[in-house]
Amino acid sequence: MSGRRLVNGVEGAGLATDDRGLQYGDGLFETMLARDGKVRNFDLHMQRLELGCRALGMPMPVSEVIEAECTKALRGLGTAVVKLVLTRGSGPRSYAPPLEPNMTRIISATSTQSQEQEWGKPVTAVICETRLGINPSLAGYKHINRLEQVLGAAELRVQGVDEGLMFATDGRLIAATASNVFLVKEGRVLTPDIRDCGIAGVMRQLVLRAAEDLSVPVAVGDFTLADVQTADEVFVTNAVRGIRCVSEIKDMAQYSIGPVALQLRDHIVATAG
Amino acid sequence: MSGRRLVNGVEGAGLATDDRGLQYGDGLFETMLARDGKVRNFDLHMQRLELGCRALGMPMPVSEVIEAECTKALRGLGTAVVKLVLTRGSGPRSYAPPLEPNMTRIISATSTQSQEQEWGKPVTAVICETRLGINPSLAGYKHINRLEQVLGAAELRVQGVDEGLMFATDGRLIAATASNVFLVKEGRVLTPDIRDCGIAGVMRQLVLRAAEDLSVPVAVGDFTLADVQTADEVFVTNAVRGIRCVSEIKDMAQYSIGPVALQLRDHIVATAG
Repeated sequence: MSGRRLVNGVEGAGLATDDRGLQYGDGLFETMLARDGKVRNFDLHMQRLELGCRALGMPMPVSEVIEAECTKALRGLGTAVVKLVLTRGSGPRSYAPPLEPNMTRIISATSTQSQEQEWGKPVTAVICETRLGINPSLAGYKHINRLEQVLGAAELRVQGVDEGLMFATDGRLIAATASNVFLVKEGRVLTPDIRDCGIAGVMRQLVLRAAEDLSVPVAVGDFTLADVQTADEVFVTNAVRGIRCVSEIKDMAQYSIGPVALQLRDHIVATAG
Repeated sequence: MSGRRLVNGVEGAGLATDDRGLQYGDGLFETMLARDGKVRNFDLHMQRLELGCRALGMPMPVSEVIEAECTKALRGLGTAVVKLVLTRGSGPRSYAPPLEPNMTRIISATSTQSQEQEWGKPVTAVICETRLGINPSLAGYKHINRLEQVLGAAELRVQGVDEGLMFATDGRLIAATASNVFLVKEGRVLTPDIRDCGIAGVMRQLVLRAAEDLSVPVAVGDFTLADVQTADEVFVTNAVRGIRCVSEIKDMAQYSIGPVALQLRDHIVATAG
């Protein structure tokens, strides 16, 4: 595994300790899959980043600058994961954001074995005890306040599973620790509404689009543990690992691998640019 | 204004960009007031930090190490604000926390004009539109996932006021953007229960203790906007600025400055070590 890190385009630079990304989690991120120097679905990632910037009242960087920095970071890496962290930059001690922030862009590229051919691979899961707080002001955006996911992911190691389903404090199914989640029930694809909790994943968007292309009926709504228990298939999605089928939720349920998840995967892989 | 920054005891060091404090907000902080090289209520700050470490599954640093680093950072600064950020340190890209983290301690000391004689100073406030999410897993701890406070504080500038009262998504009064909040009603001191939202402030603890010392009746519970509107006094507290009396909530209510808030302030100042 090899990699490269750039801070505002400069390789190997460190971060100022007064960066608001560190002090308050005042920033956003994108985790992207790249092949041969090119980021997949770059435009979708930039669209989400821009929505996040608007919600946090931060200026959106010129996406060509980010693209050029990704290219620089990716040189010679083949298939790689690119993570961009965008923060509101340095500032004095105060929650109040500076009026004219000097934003910080941190781009890390790391070569990976993750291959689209492996998408659909079965994973085991657990129901996380950690719940997700509800907040319409922050829902949907990929901001760097991720302690809930950190606590959720810590549960997976203890349980010896690959992923964990996370529910909101009011009991609604929201996501997996590092993925969006989908259920399949009687041929219908179900996924949580993320109006007040959760992240609007790029792969989630591609799955919804694929379902539309294939005329698979979809419901975006509120689902509970009972819906998870009675689903025919459960799968989790993110931009790096694509679609992963949940084979088992520990001590709770087992699921078939496809056919709907695999059909959606094949369509996404086939139509990828 | 002058200051000093230490990373793991080293002055002027930068932060690695893969620090989990930046990547996920995976850390805690303490903001403390110091005079002549000595941090006030240091033990109370360390007690809260330790509770936070336990909740996040991080090792608590030896408090003598933190104390020595504070002393080093404070040299020659007189009255100063010391901010400690404690993160889970560097790690590979994964929400899952490393089993044996190399924690990062960032200590910044900045000289300040804040004087205890000024405690009790009137401030203006507003009701923030930004709500606070509810999450029992994180409530009480001073973690660095603070985007809600950033959004709340951004509202203050627009409104031209000093502070903002923040409510949970279910409508309960929780705190001000950078302070705990107290109401006084018919001689009773009321403050929000923070079992599932908010931060357990060190000054909040000192106020509750002062009320007990002075036999002022206290209720820790659930309060709403109506309680704020009908209060006789409203005051906000934090470790740096002590007690500040809210003179006015913009377009909503005016309050008297004391007598209860000033009585509590006098007691806290008089009994400070």
